[in-house]
Amino acid sequence: MALRNLRLVLEYDGTGYSGFQRQKGRRTIQQVLEECIEVISGEKVRVTGAGRTDAGVHALGQVVNFTTESRIAQDRWVPALNSVLPPDIRVKEACEVPLEFNARFCARSKVYRYTIDTAPVASVFTRHYAYHVPRPLDYSLMVAASRYLVGKKDFRSFCASGAGVKTFTREVKRIDWRRDGNLLHMEIEADGFLYNMVRIIVGTMIRMSNQGLPPETINDILAARDRRRAGPTAPAKGLVLVSVNY
Amino acid sequence: MALRNLRLVLEYDGTGYSGFQRQKGRRTIQQVLEECIEVISGEKVRVTGAGRTDAGVHALGQVVNFTTESRIAQDRWVPALNSVLPPDIRVKEACEVPLEFNARFCARSKVYRYTIDTAPVASVFTRHYAYHVPRPLDYSLMVAASRYLVGKKDFRSFCASGAGVKTFTREVKRIDWRRDGNLLHMEIEADGFLYNMVRIIVGTMIRMSNQGLPPETINDILAARDRRRAGPTAPAKGLVLVSVNY
Repeated sequence: MALRNLRLVLEYDGTGYSGFQRQKGRRTIQQVLEECIEVISGEKVRVTGAGRTDAGVHALGQVVNFTTESRIAQDRWVPALNSVLPPDIRVKEACEVPLEFNARFCARSKVYRYTIDTAPVASVFTRHYAYHVPRPLDYSLMVAASRYLVGKKDFRSFCASGAGVKTFTREVKRIDWRRDGNLLHMEIEADGFLYNMVRIIVGTMIRMSNQGLPPETINDILAARDRRRAGPTAPAKGLVLVSVNY
Repeated sequence: MALRNLRLVLEYDGTGYSGFQRQKGRRTIQQVLEECIEVISGEKVRVTGAGRTDAGVHALGQVVNFTTESRIAQDRWVPALNSVLPPDIRVKEACEVPLEFNARFCARSKVYRYTIDTAPVASVFTRHYAYHVPRPLDYSLMVAASRYLVGKKDFRSFCASGAGVKTFTREVKRIDWRRDGNLLHMEIEADGFLYNMVRIIVGTMIRMSNQGLPPETINDILAARDRRRAGPTAPAKGLVLVSVNY
């Protein structure tokens, strides 16, 4: 049987998982997905994910690929996988792609969104999907500060750990903020992200707002190339991988 | 100590509860709330809720009241209760009201919202908060049909059980539909609701859309005063009590 390469688009609620990537003794998205693929195809496969989301991080459009010798038709993968996957993981699309396609290395850019709940009392409906900050935040300061992060820059100050990273240079293509009642959403697109980069950016914005720092402070933090100059890491639960562009 | 009457505004995720009202051997919102009030005040109280939401139904603005002899200051109730309540129930407001106030009998109108997820694959993020109908629905038909429900009418056809009800006449003040991506939201305000009324209205709209019935069909269903003429009862999880007006 000929080898085929399949690409899936996944949505998941990361609340009950120790992140995307397989880890011994932990329940992860990758492990559950690979087990379900085995149930329906009888094959042990290894999936490659575009973004290795951390524990508690969600996805609206995670992309994975895997090679298979199974004869299952392209349009049967979505209903078949969803019939065995737990309800907090859904496959939204499945299609055959050239064998060269690799969900991780072929990605041109990824889009993440971070949500802050500014209500005095945290909403029960976003308790797993937003960071509760029950203080007034300076929205226009955060919007203005974000502009200093856009472009091709060294983001070492916004990286939790440099392990295995060759360069700290990433290109942030855009950062858009949106207000929806008590919720603030920050959407960020970049050609790649360093470890915890989005969560450190959000933590830095919140600290700048709390301390009333001018937006240009971002330039000093970037120039320092020192994690300690940026703000704290905002919690995982507010983060969602929105889409991956190829 | 003087008797005081306290009014609370509650938000809750009804997924893990057998509805609002106390029932032997079941975990309900009322029971958990009363136990938490006892923990902080030392008093056994009985709360009155404006709407007795069913198992799986949610609330953004449920209103309850109870009388207390406790000395706890008005502005301490919200943080004190939230420190002991489970994270799927939050108190948003607490204030002292005249002793005559009764959350149920003084309500002039209530607003409910019902959400339908029309995406081909159900979103994991609304899996507990929307009814998944993976078929195209005739939005303009449903909007047009809703208009025939507005006004003071006999809603016997839209009532699951007439037990304990003196009259089936209710005044629907408005029905507004809103589209948000794959989600359809129906918001309905009335001076009162019969048992399962909102869920039967939604089930009827969906059936009319599926069968391509004209909007005026609603008049025939109303005139029949017969539950069997209306559509099926839509699932509880799509329903949320938005607010109560006094």
